[in-house]
Amino acid sequence: MKGAVLHGARDVRFEEWEAPRILEPTDAVIRLSATCICGSDLWPYRGINPTAEPTPMGHEYCGVVEEVGRAVTSVKPGQFVIGSFFASDNTCPRCRAGYQTSCEHRQLVGGAQAPLLRVPLADGTLVATREVPSPDLVPSMLAASDVLGTGWFAADAANVRPGKTAVVVGDGAVGLLAVLAAKQMGAERIIAMSRHEPRQKLARELGATDVVTERGDEGIARIKELTKGVGADSVLECVGTAESMQQAIGAARPGGYVSYVGVPHGVQLDGQKLFFTHVHLHGGPAPVRRYLPRLIELIESRTIDPGKVFDLTLPLDKVAEGYRAMDERRAIKTLLRP
Amino acid sequence: MKGAVLHGARDVRFEEWEAPRILEPTDAVIRLSATCICGSDLWPYRGINPTAEPTPMGHEYCGVVEEVGRAVTSVKPGQFVIGSFFASDNTCPRCRAGYQTSCEHRQLVGGAQAPLLRVPLADGTLVATREVPSPDLVPSMLAASDVLGTGWFAADAANVRPGKTAVVVGDGAVGLLAVLAAKQMGAERIIAMSRHEPRQKLARELGATDVVTERGDEGIARIKELTKGVGADSVLECVGTAESMQQAIGAARPGGYVSYVGVPHGVQLDGQKLFFTHVHLHGGPAPVRRYLPRLIELIESRTIDPGKVFDLTLPLDKVAEGYRAMDERRAIKTLLRP
Repeated sequence: MKGAVLHGARDVRFEEWEAPRILEPTDAVIRLSATCICGSDLWPYRGINPTAEPTPMGHEYCGVVEEVGRAVTSVKPGQFVIGSFFASDNTCPRCRAGYQTSCEHRQLVGGAQAPLLRVPLADGTLVATREVPSPDLVPSMLAASDVLGTGWFAADAANVRPGKTAVVVGDGAVGLLAVLAAKQMGAERIIAMSRHEPRQKLARELGATDVVTERGDEGIARIKELTKGVGADSVLECVGTAESMQQAIGAARPGGYVSYVGVPHGVQLDGQKLFFTHVHLHGGPAPVRRYLPRLIELIESRTIDPGKVFDLTLPLDKVAEGYRAMDERRAIKTLLRP
Repeated sequence: MKGAVLHGARDVRFEEWEAPRILEPTDAVIRLSATCICGSDLWPYRGINPTAEPTPMGHEYCGVVEEVGRAVTSVKPGQFVIGSFFASDNTCPRCRAGYQTSCEHRQLVGGAQAPLLRVPLADGTLVATREVPSPDLVPSMLAASDVLGTGWFAADAANVRPGKTAVVVGDGAVGLLAVLAAKQMGAERIIAMSRHEPRQKLARELGATDVVTERGDEGIARIKELTKGVGADSVLECVGTAESMQQAIGAARPGGYVSYVGVPHGVQLDGQKLFFTHVHLHGGPAPVRRYLPRLIELIESRTIDPGKVFDLTLPLDKVAEGYRAMDERRAIKTLLRP
């Protein structure tokens, strides 16, 4: 079997590795209908997170169950399933509280940029659709696996409510789907912070009512202007840098909610400054599993179309080009066909 | 008029200064029934916050209105009133959202360790009781002005709910009244972190079900033990140091709530570490004004007795001894009689 392996900065190869198989009785192996490249894959791709050894890449997946371990009871071969980047048992107290990405038994899922994938803790991790979805729904199902679930968590963690104002910092796939989520949750005004025209356009299609191109202090000043000097009720930080975090906190009103869903890189928060902003802060690795049943319903009923964030589709063997296109911001998100 | 003036580290003097009078039409002048020394007064007293010039001290107050400016309509001479450390208009969008300590027109109230006090924005700031309270209720009314309101905010911001577990970090007056607040909000288990026996005893009187004497990593381990390895639903950080903040975040379960209500001193939060804890974080200068009407009701009906935190009462001219007793932790909180 051939899949994507990262060897070092900007060195992704499509190469042979051993096909996954059932190792634990709680495992499933699935045949991927589609897979993709994540914004977070760019951290190691760019060498910001160093790569110690050749690493099979990919953690977003949906497809048909090929085989299950003997302890698996909730999914069976032939079913179409979606899971997320952390496998979870979905029964421990942390899972039951809705934080499956902090599951006591969580395991990272890796190697999804390939035709076949082993998923641990299949009962807790995978959610089956009612039937195998029509091919045009597959990109949206794949989006649910990570970027949609993460954008949804961003909106939920930032307490987006009907009639309120939400600001989305970041115009990557997660930010764009955070716009979609904020709209679904009833935000009256959704301000997308973006300076890239095609992404601004997509943000508007997905529900943004305003676009702010300024960044940093100027961006904050613009948000204040748009909110009668008060600041936004909810700010969804979907980047993970010190600049974006500062911008997010500065854009919120006192007592407002700031969520952050991208792994922070170089972010240090001064306790005293944060104290006087009066914001609520919540984030972490998105517990996508919590939202999957609802997201699948919304996709099956064609209420939402998160698959729109894939603006480049390539056969899996062209995965290296997929990384390049995202690295150079020529593509928002690359879908790969195994 | 004589009141308390801080001249430098550990140098509080009871000395003459000009009696306050109405300066703005929105001011009130009140004759204090009681005043007190705040844990936060110890930061400048200990020289941790430097004192640039002689500073009248005190920001906790209740008493009888002596005079009001011509624009004041909601309180009148003869009424017993309580206010808080930030004067606020209580009409701007920030106030209406419940964050009066971030009021667009907020002004620090100072010089309350004296017989008379000028309170700006009297209509927004002061809340009158139904009648002049009996003398035994005055300490509780005074507590409502700051430490009770702050402890209440700690419990509210940490999302304390019926049946849940709350941990209180800090056994000062705010921490002790955070215990009282957590009990009022229905927490089933309230764990006070304290290693001082008289304070442990008071914590139990106020509602603590457990006391943990360990600190730092050992304290966190003990909380985990007491919560079946999960961590607490709510943690109320009532100190403001790097150690107490770390302890608070470590004691919360993933998805749990951490509040912080003491001005942070030397607190730096690493974004990536915070991200993986999955906690909610909320705090800031407590919007005591939001809670005052409810707190006054609870005191008038003798449902709560927050005045218990005053374990030393001195005449105002002995204010320097009051500071010494709190600095040396001989007293939890000193009430001063003008």
